[in-house]
Amino acid sequence: MTFPPEQDRLRAQLTFAVEIDKLRRVVRRNTLLDGSRRENDAEHSWYVGMLAMILAEHAPPGTDLDRVIAMLLVHDIVEIDAGDTFIYDDGAVEAQLGIEREAADRIFGLLPGDQAERLRALWDEFEERKTPEAKFAKALDRIAPIMANHHNEGGTWSLFKVTAEQVLEKVKIIEEGSPTLGSYAVEIIELSVSRGHLARA
Amino acid sequence: MTFPPEQDRLRAQLTFAVEIDKLRRVVRRNTLLDGSRRENDAEHSWYVGMLAMILAEHAPPGTDLDRVIAMLLVHDIVEIDAGDTFIYDDGAVEAQLGIEREAADRIFGLLPGDQAERLRALWDEFEERKTPEAKFAKALDRIAPIMANHHNEGGTWSLFKVTAEQVLEKVKIIEEGSPTLGSYAVEIIELSVSRGHLARA
Repeated sequence: MTFPPEQDRLRAQLTFAVEIDKLRRVVRRNTLLDGSRRENDAEHSWYVGMLAMILAEHAPPGTDLDRVIAMLLVHDIVEIDAGDTFIYDDGAVEAQLGIEREAADRIFGLLPGDQAERLRALWDEFEERKTPEAKFAKALDRIAPIMANHHNEGGTWSLFKVTAEQVLEKVKIIEEGSPTLGSYAVEIIELSVSRGHLARA
Repeated sequence: MTFPPEQDRLRAQLTFAVEIDKLRRVVRRNTLLDGSRRENDAEHSWYVGMLAMILAEHAPPGTDLDRVIAMLLVHDIVEIDAGDTFIYDDGAVEAQLGIEREAADRIFGLLPGDQAERLRALWDEFEERKTPEAKFAKALDRIAPIMANHHNEGGTWSLFKVTAEQVLEKVKIIEEGSPTLGSYAVEIIELSVSRGHLARA
């Protein structure tokens, strides 16, 4: 396709649009709520974006929910290059950081400069988890698999031999983003333990 | 799960969250850009939300992009009950309207009243296509499959014997939401015709 010079921005945006279609082919450990198959990063990103919309009132007052949603739509795009990391694999999570930063440079760098900067800033904010928006976004990203495993008689917890103590350790991140959702996560984890779907160490 | 009365809102929100997970199982006619499989409604909703973010400048000045994104995340949820309709099947599109309205009543009605109203209003706005936000959202929803078919040597066009004239008829809706994207759509349709991937009537 040839574009006149003034359409250089559109061309760059479409190149990025073609690239991010690949996020649909990045498969995560977690499954759909019915356990029928593993989820991909694109549909996961939609799901947590919807969670932000419907659980908005459980974020701290003043949280900019539109930024939370934008952050969640963008948060996994680096996995087109870097792949999914299982959060209970601590070594892999550490090694992944550098790879994800290179992926962010390459993929967001396909966009016109101002947009590349904006999306990169959203991703950095999410990863740094310092703002209320990033903390709430991360809380939703973490609670989604807990909800799935709870609905799923243990799901990836039993499959990958994750213990209640490991899951509760990750719940701290949910509590930091939303105390209400943190309490809810603890409640369903305890319920999963009592039903024998999640083992204690 | 039992909740104290003050958590009734959270319980309703979580019921809705469980319900909308099913959108991942609604399969559309259109495929991924690489043609490897048909897409589902959840990942499609993520994709058009991302298109809104990166193609924002091609919306009319003053368009509220955050509302466009919210509308796109929500726009296909009714298909959990109603299923996907192929836009070139005019009879089905007509019959679908009543079914989709009932689906909207049931599914958005799972949320607390104020949220049910808000999401229903977003969906109605999208369907009515009167505001600049709804027109732009619909333009993105329509351009995504054209991009996919173009990348895909005709894709669903050749599969379902759709003609260039039928596709160009649908492009009017893209032009109404964004003249720039409308011109781009016409350009790739003509390119697809010249490559023999889209037949004239």
